[in-house]
Amino acid sequence: MASPHNPNTFTDNPLDRASHLRADPEWLAAARKRDDTLFAPLCQLRPLLLPRGGDGGAAGLGWVTAAQLAGADLSNSVFLGLEGGQPYFAVDVSDLPEAASEAPFGMAGAFEDLMGALGRLDARSVSLLAQAKSMLDWHRRHGFCAQCGAPTVFADGGYRRDCPSCKAQHFPRTDPVVISLVVRDGRCLLGRNAMFRGPMFSALAGFLEPGETVEEAVAREVKEEVGIEVGEVEYLFTQPWPFPSSLMIGCVAQALTEAITVDENEIAEARWFTREQLARGLAQSENIDYRQMMSAERDADSPEFFVPPASAIAHQLLRAWVEAQE
Amino acid sequence: MASPHNPNTFTDNPLDRASHLRADPEWLAAARKRDDTLFAPLCQLRPLLLPRGGDGGAAGLGWVTAAQLAGADLSNSVFLGLEGGQPYFAVDVSDLPEAASEAPFGMAGAFEDLMGALGRLDARSVSLLAQAKSMLDWHRRHGFCAQCGAPTVFADGGYRRDCPSCKAQHFPRTDPVVISLVVRDGRCLLGRNAMFRGPMFSALAGFLEPGETVEEAVAREVKEEVGIEVGEVEYLFTQPWPFPSSLMIGCVAQALTEAITVDENEIAEARWFTREQLARGLAQSENIDYRQMMSAERDADSPEFFVPPASAIAHQLLRAWVEAQE
Repeated sequence: MASPHNPNTFTDNPLDRASHLRADPEWLAAARKRDDTLFAPLCQLRPLLLPRGGDGGAAGLGWVTAAQLAGADLSNSVFLGLEGGQPYFAVDVSDLPEAASEAPFGMAGAFEDLMGALGRLDARSVSLLAQAKSMLDWHRRHGFCAQCGAPTVFADGGYRRDCPSCKAQHFPRTDPVVISLVVRDGRCLLGRNAMFRGPMFSALAGFLEPGETVEEAVAREVKEEVGIEVGEVEYLFTQPWPFPSSLMIGCVAQALTEAITVDENEIAEARWFTREQLARGLAQSENIDYRQMMSAERDADSPEFFVPPASAIAHQLLRAWVEAQE
Repeated sequence: MASPHNPNTFTDNPLDRASHLRADPEWLAAARKRDDTLFAPLCQLRPLLLPRGGDGGAAGLGWVTAAQLAGADLSNSVFLGLEGGQPYFAVDVSDLPEAASEAPFGMAGAFEDLMGALGRLDARSVSLLAQAKSMLDWHRRHGFCAQCGAPTVFADGGYRRDCPSCKAQHFPRTDPVVISLVVRDGRCLLGRNAMFRGPMFSALAGFLEPGETVEEAVAREVKEEVGIEVGEVEYLFTQPWPFPSSLMIGCVAQALTEAITVDENEIAEARWFTREQLARGLAQSENIDYRQMMSAERDADSPEFFVPPASAIAHQLLRAWVEAQE
């Protein structure tokens, strides 16, 4: 199964990260004052969404200028990169009173949860928010030095925090997660997470640990969660996942055994599905209200199972596998 | 180029990590007292190496029992896993006076730098040390809560640190690094790192950043370091790299352009090499004293260039590419 073009949400960030400029405080200070520089304001990690068009459905990402942010300290805004020479930054506005106003920074929008907004935002905005949200989240949770406990300071355009006390340098964190479609004899194994109430079945996933390769982590996770041995593991594609900051590594793993023994701490149930079942599940996913489905009690009209939405790498893994067989 | 069996050093850790036992403090406490439990002692992150055989060349990894560690607090030893039911732990002995003795814990060995010992240790010991060293390093540098600055406590057999003050949970960190062989028309591009004095040429590498896929990180790093645009990127294999704790993601990237513009902050020089040149470089690498070569001035007998040792994923990427063409 050849790697397809990467179909995942949060990919194709269009910016030139221009990392050499991060170490140039004068350039950064001047860029933060330019009229054409755009800032993505996040409040409690929520982006500013603007209504767009007359139908009230589609949304745009709210960008603001230094003038709109008047009075805010922009020295801790994170440099995202350049597009056609125009600088982009992300800024945490959680502590600004203006963020709580009816029309924040003069924009007719509201701060909304990114996960909930995924279906309404365009792909470009979503890819920029993957970078912006991961970075601001890291700053919010890393104000102190893990080595000595002293407060740390913003550095390198946001890509480092320095400890003035013990001199340690800290860098943004990205956690590799392996997520794998376990397949055998034309069928594919999916599990239902113990945390979900609705019958959503997905690929098996877990954090890669120190001292593991991707393939070793896949074999360990699959063995732990469903008791199945896997042989060959094929890498397909990756997805940045800003909740808070993972690298999802999508693989297809060939099962060597078939009997399922579920680890009930993580997985409520696991089953083998046919290609036809999954093709139906993928087709149905466009019409599902995931928020409602994952929490609601089942009734007579509920589907017997459903698969993750198109924004999840698990969905794209399933789609790649179903389409490769067709 | 199909993914070969993973040829990298630090892979094939034989332990069952048995992660369900990490949450069982009674099992852990009992396991730490068992006569058959083995502890890998590390002093300042250096493993204990024992001379082996009569030639003085080969070395064994020193494992010790709870009895040998008498008096030491083993409650913060990290559970590595089981092999045939036998528990393995890693313990930081840097603060034990006994570690500084002539024969630490009654063993006729010495604590040595892991990087320098790679050529002398067997593959099994090296793979166990990848896990042990990464984990102990993380504990040494994460004694405080990055969120609030309070001291944190060891938890979950070593796979978590908890903050009693703000209740944050912290997990071991593994940083994804992309390393890529840039190829075009049967040639391959290698760079000489600005930090090395000797003419060692290697694949281009850099940390993956929040919001990037593997392929996007490869394209950015290659563009930054040598000014070349890449098209298709193929994943080959990964390597755990415990200096301090990276996941090296090895790729082959097809160059779309040929002219080299070096970023002199990172790369002193970059060149296109033929398959024949690299086949010679790989063959020569077995006889190179890397420590001496990377620091010494060149003389008339010095090779014109050399490639990284077999323990580096860059070497295995080169080998895979050279052999795929043969």
